[in-house]
Order: sequence, then C-alpha cells, then structure tokens
Amino acid sequence: MEKIEDFSLSCPIPIQQYPNVLLAHGGGGKLMQQLIERMFLPTFGRFNGVSHDAAALNLPSGKIALTTDSYVVNPLFFPGGDIGSMAVHGTVNDLAMAGARPLYLSAGFILEEGLSMATLWQIVQSMQQAAQKAGVQIVTGDTKVVDQGKGDGIFINTTGIGIIEHQQQIAPNSVQPGDVLLLNGDLGRHGIAIMAVREGLEFETTIESDSAPVASLVLQLLDAGIEIHCLRDLTRGGLASALNEIASAADLSISIEEKQIPVIEDVQGACEILGFDPLYVANEGRFVAFVPPKDAEKALEIMRGHPLGRQACRIGSVGTATGIVTMHSRIGATRLVDMLSGEQLPRIC
Amino acid sequence: MEKIEDFSLSCPIPIQQYPNVLLAHGGGGKLMQQLIERMFLPTFGRFNGVSHDAAALNLPSGKIALTTDSYVVNPLFFPGGDIGSMAVHGTVNDLAMAGARPLYLSAGFILEEGLSMATLWQIVQSMQQAAQKAGVQIVTGDTKVVDQGKGDGIFINTTGIGIIEHQQQIAPNSVQPGDVLLLNGDLGRHGIAIMAVREGLEFETTIESDSAPVASLVLQLLDAGIEIHCLRDLTRGGLASALNEIASAADLSISIEEKQIPVIEDVQGACEILGFDPLYVANEGRFVAFVPPKDAEKALEIMRGHPLGRQACRIGSVGTATGIVTMHSRIGATRLVDMLSGEQLPRIC
Repeated sequence: MEKIEDFSLSCPIPIQQYPNVLLAHGGGGKLMQQLIERMFLPTFGRFNGVSHDAAALNLPSGKIALTTDSYVVNPLFFPGGDIGSMAVHGTVNDLAMAGARPLYLSAGFILEEGLSMATLWQIVQSMQQAAQKAGVQIVTGDTKVVDQGKGDGIFINTTGIGIIEHQQQIAPNSVQPGDVLLLNGDLGRHGIAIMAVREGLEFETTIESDSAPVASLVLQLLDAGIEIHCLRDLTRGGLASALNEIASAADLSISIEEKQIPVIEDVQGACEILGFDPLYVANEGRFVAFVPPKDAEKALEIMRGHPLGRQACRIGSVGTATGIVTMHSRIGATRLVDMLSGEQLPRIC
Repeated sequence: MEKIEDFSLSCPIPIQQYPNVLLAHGGGGKLMQQLIERMFLPTFGRFNGVSHDAAALNLPSGKIALTTDSYVVNPLFFPGGDIGSMAVHGTVNDLAMAGARPLYLSAGFILEEGLSMATLWQIVQSMQQAAQKAGVQIVTGDTKVVDQGKGDGIFINTTGIGIIEHQQQIAPNSVQPGDVLLLNGDLGRHGIAIMAVREGLEFETTIESDSAPVASLVLQLLDAGIEIHCLRDLTRGGLASALNEIASAADLSISIEEKQIPVIEDVQGACEILGFDPLYVANEGRFVAFVPPKDAEKALEIMRGHPLGRQACRIGSVGTATGIVTMHSRIGATRLVDMLSGEQLPRIC
C-alpha cells in the first residue's frame, strides 16, 4: 500500500484528474500525447533518433539478433520483481541466449481501462531501472487501451535488438555428444514466488523471483573464448522442457544428475505442497550452457565469479541416444524426464 | 460462417481435439510446441537464422529503423482486412514513415483462452499473405495465453526493422514554411468500416477499410530523388491530430483546404449519422508527405502512378505562424483544427 501511495505522489500525470487509465489514453489524441510526453519520454529518455513512430539506430556492423516476448504475468508485482522488470529481463535474456549483446528494446503497452495511473507509473519506472541495469535503451513504444474486462491491468510486449559479435553457432544443432551442461543457479524461485502470492502461501523467508538479466554473464563467457554450443534460458516449462527441446532438435540424449541441481528448501517444500516438480517450474534468470568438456572448468569458474552465477554447477552431459532426457535421481534410479504436458503454471511470465 | 468452416478444414492443429485455444497453448510445453511447429513455422517460414528464441539477421549496412505496435482492433474481421493484415500493414507503414525499407517483423500473440483455433489460423494466414505482399518476413515470435475474460480473442504485437538507405532527415523539425502537403487518397474508410460493423450500419456499398502497406509508394518517391521533409500516416486521431503534432513539433502553421480532401460519399454520410468528423477518423493506408514546392508536382505524379496513390492530391501548405492548424472550408470560412480530444473511436487498431 505504502509503495502505491509513493508512486501517486511522484506520478507525472495529474492523479486527481486522471486516477485511472481511460480509453482516451490510447486514442491518439491529447491524453495519449500527455502520457507519452510526460511519462514515457522523460522516463525512457528522449531518444534522439526518433522520426515519427520509429527509432533510427546506428548499429555497429555485425549480425543482429531480434527477439520478441509479451508479458502477461499475474500478479503484476511479486517478491523480486514485477511485470516491468520482467519485460526487460526476459527479452534481454532471449538476446543473451543467442550470444548477442543486447542494445535496444521497444515497449508495447496494452492497458486495461481503469488501471491505476500510479501502478502504471510504478511499472514504467521499474522497466527503466531494469533497462539501465541491463545496459539497454528503450527507444520506441506504443500504447493501446482496451475496455474494462477485455484485458487484465497491463500486458507488455518488449522486442529486443542485439548485436552478435562472435562467430560461434550457438544453437541446439551445435550440441555434441560429450558436451557438459552448466546451470547458473538454483531452480524454481520465479514460479514459486508467483504461486505463493496467488495462493497466499507463507514461508519462513519470502521466496524471491530469480528474475535477472544474464547477458553480462554470457558475454563474459564469450569474451573469455569459451566454446559455447548452445544456451537456453529456463522459462515456461522449466529445465525439463528446455532440455527436451534441445535433445529433440539435436537428436541426442541428455542426462542430468538430480543431486547436482540446486533447489532451495522453501522451493522444494512449496513444490511438494502444490504438487509441482521443480524441473518444470519457470525461472527468469536461469540458463543452461552446453560446452565441450575442455572448457567446462574454466566456464564454471567465470560463472561463479559473476553475481548471477555464484551457485553455478555442472548438472549433466550429452550422450548419443536419440532425443531423450534422463535423470539419475538422488536414490540412484534413472528416470525419463518428459516435456511439460498440459499447463502447470499459467501466466507465469 | 462459410469462411470459418473453410479454415477449420485446413487448420494444421487437429480441430476435433483442440477446437479452441487452451491455457496450455501458452504454457511452454507440448501444446505450445505443437502450435509453433505445425502452425507458425510452416506458415511464416522456418527462418534459418533462428537460434533459440531470437532470429539472427544479416542486415545490409546502413541506419536501421525500429518500430512497434500492438493491435487490439475490435472486431477482428472487417471489410477490407482483419487484425492480422492490419498488424502487418500498420508496422510496415510506421517504418515507411521513417523512410525505411521494411525488412523483418516479429509477431507477439496474446490469445484469450477459448479463442477458436480456426479463427487463429485464419488470422495467421492473413498475416503471412500481408507480409508477402509487403515484402517483409516474419522471423521470430511469441505466444501467450490469458484466461477467459482477461483478454479479447487475440491481441497482436508486431515490431519491425527496416533499413534507411537515404540521407534525408524525414522528421517534423525538417518541415519548412512553404512546404506542400500531399495526401495519398480519401480519408476515413478504415474507421468507418470498423464502426459500421460494430453498429450494424448498412450502406449502398460496403465501406472497405483502406488498410494497406504504403512502403513501396514511399520508396518510389525516395528513389526518384524527391526531397521529403516529413511523412506521417493518419492512424489514431486522423489527419487533424497528425497535423497538429507536426505543427507543434515544427513550431509552424499548417493550413489545409477542405475541398481538396477526398472523402467518399458513404463515409461522409456515416460520419454525419455517427457525429464524427472525417478529419479525426483513423486510416490505415493513408499518409501525408511534406515536400518543398519544387518537388510537389513530380511527387504527385509518382504517387498517382502507384495503386495506393491514384487519388493523391495537394491538400495544403506550411506557413510561418506557430504551432496551429487551420482549414479553409468549402463555404469560404477559415477555422482552427484542433487535436483530437477525448476518445472518438476506441480500439480502431
């Protein structure tokens, strides 16, 4: 509550007059112009290459990566983040997974009529803070407003451009038998943080989302000359679905060691209560890197030297069987790990 | 109805099993993979630069334009187009307004649980047809599903990249006193086509949206060496709001001639019934070009030689007063044309 009151005070749109978003804020007239001129441009920065609706960018030469994601997470705010910071981290991470240096983002807002203006302001500020920390610039945007009951507060699309400065082919079909799987941290915190808010679950300590921009960590690996065969962030569908996609695309097998995969106790406990498997829970700051054995130790060292890789670990390796993922469990059994089937956690991102 | 039945027959997702979109279609598991593998990739083309979620693009050297728009139009289908074709045309046009050659689009879908799978298929096909006609490639995408009642069928974000091959500064602050305003066709058809469907209005002939990709017309002007000071498409807020924004940014006055502005009779009639002014009604294939007098005749000739500029005309000129737009009416009076205030036509794009 306190937070929301603060944002009312600093909101650049007169809150007494416009406490909530109106359809006219997306109508192309004076109110939309006010929203752009007073809230978006001063916050994201008046990008000097903007001509009409498009940003004009001078990119360094090289290959470009382009990625898009819409964010519909519910609730909008959760321990460790909000829809605004996530919309930046998620797209930055997708660029990082292509081995690209993230440079620019676009931001497309779909607002529901009646959204609190202070909430919008809080989210917009969170986006900008996340963008600054991740070293990207939000250079163009769009605002639409839908009638009450036809949206859910706010949906955000971010599309990102990054530059690919290396010559490696980072993709599932570059994965080789023998490759080592490195994971940058513990699993399941994002999904469980969201579910805890939705279900009103309480833990000894609050479980915070792992939402974070991992691009600088990936770029450190590349800059150090680590050979990287594939990168994958562990969002919707979690580790299990990501590995299944890669195993299937590479037509190889992947085996992982349960006891090597870090899951904090509260997440493990929540999974048991909710009937989830941490292997399928979404993360927003976790990724797996496939590297050849020769580079595994050095890569691990670099990861552990980065704030987002302190707990980095080897979790498995690639074999020659076709398209399957298996896990060697704590109790010594080996089981097949399938792709997520059905819907485990809707609107997690 | 007939249309929808056809799309059920050709739909690559088994309609008997999945007649409607489920939350799981956005969950990151098997159903989402099926949607991507069977519907999106075969339709948009399996872009061979895709690594994980990002497309890797080799761009020709030059300046890049980046633009984003979300589309929330209601209804999803209307005479002359649908949300899919609009999502392509609108973003292509924003790139064109920066004088850029549109190259690549991303597509972000926010689907409402329960959306008919055949409807999604119809829209996806329409997007691809529009992209082909406009000469752009849809290279990366994202799918989210929100629970029933938290969306409205389908929202689409497209973000576009184009290449700027000329050296001109096409922007409001390049506008000069004496510049001539050229318009590429009649006003108001898009907005009225949408309203006619919503309100169940019938006309002598069906009013079709003007939705179209104008990039090839703009590139013809640039290729012919026409000096272009500013370009603006006349979407939300219509001609009146666009000209007010430019007049204000350029700190100059703009005067237009009512009798020069083409509006078809049915649109004029509908505006009278609905209480709208065609100057404020949204268009999706209309733009104004600001050119110096020396190039006006040649530009007009080029525009008239293009299918999307047959009715191109001079509609006014730029003066030295500050930041105002005036119109010389049919009956000889001069009135101030203000920016759209309030909301005229919600969810028009």
